[in-house]
Amino acid sequence: MLQQPLKFSHEVLKDTIITGDHVIDATIGNGNDTLLLAQLVGPYGKVYGFDIQDEAIKTTEDKLLLTGQRPQVQLINDGHENIDHYLEENELISAVTFNLGYLPKGDKSITTKPETTLTAIKKALKYLRRQGILSIMVYSGHEGGLEEKEAVDSLVSQLPQKEYNVLMYKFINQVNLPPYLYIVEKR
Amino acid sequence: MLQQPLKFSHEVLKDTIITGDHVIDATIGNGNDTLLLAQLVGPYGKVYGFDIQDEAIKTTEDKLLLTGQRPQVQLINDGHENIDHYLEENELISAVTFNLGYLPKGDKSITTKPETTLTAIKKALKYLRRQGILSIMVYSGHEGGLEEKEAVDSLVSQLPQKEYNVLMYKFINQVNLPPYLYIVEKR
Repeated sequence: MLQQPLKFSHEVLKDTIITGDHVIDATIGNGNDTLLLAQLVGPYGKVYGFDIQDEAIKTTEDKLLLTGQRPQVQLINDGHENIDHYLEENELISAVTFNLGYLPKGDKSITTKPETTLTAIKKALKYLRRQGILSIMVYSGHEGGLEEKEAVDSLVSQLPQKEYNVLMYKFINQVNLPPYLYIVEKR
Repeated sequence: MLQQPLKFSHEVLKDTIITGDHVIDATIGNGNDTLLLAQLVGPYGKVYGFDIQDEAIKTTEDKLLLTGQRPQVQLINDGHENIDHYLEENELISAVTFNLGYLPKGDKSITTKPETTLTAIKKALKYLRRQGILSIMVYSGHEGGLEEKEAVDSLVSQLPQKEYNVLMYKFINQVNLPPYLYIVEKR
């Protein structure tokens, strides 16, 4: 059976990340990706997790504590457009995850925005090690979502082929704006 | 490392096909897919291999003989738009492969064509078992290739969501019309 985009993204993360790696969850949300990243980097790795909502930080913290994965995660209550405020200048990152849109079961009026999303993607790319990946799940059903989707489509499709492979993984015969996936891989 | 489309298609075929299955290689070409399919279905399975060029049939026959995979393959020197002439009416197929374009290292003026390609895809879909897949590698660099690509894009993107999942797997930041992949999965 074909994997759904989010599941495929997780398989690529498992193939990419090794223990001890530093990684970024740019939109922790309900913390599912954060937990997976924490398990993959292990106790000697590091996960930087960003979210602007207290609710997301708390839910994720509980999930990490319950599973014993809290120590290697730095939870940051700030926008992902500020990742450079928290990383070392030459720090190398093997993976970055973005889930655009709103917090599932949360306040649907609080969403990622085109301008800060693009800034975060551009900044995150600078930290990627070779063969490192940036995973972007594009949900566009929210207010302003189509504008954000177009901004992201435009940015990633123009990344230079010599420096990045940009894969689109998308089910194309579905109605109702289903989420799809971009994987940007640094060559 | 992200897999190229053809490699990803092979992984999906390996996940889908079990020994004893009946499958179709709609464009045998140099026989690489035919050989993989023959290995996956095994001695009790069956591969129907179509190609309109003698050269492709001969190259593939040699490849199959050398690897001991000849018995389970029926090589058919006919167009894939005629697959219904060779299969039983209610025969169930677990996988079909299409590689559009011309025979690599062959006569570049002999290519797949929109009309026969669409007919073949539509006919092949009727034989798919549930969770069976149709893999289409779209090469559009040949004469008439863009027209064929648009016809295939249009057909697969309109397949009903209740009956099929249609995945696009495509590197989107490459110049020079790189090949990309569709996987149509019967639900």
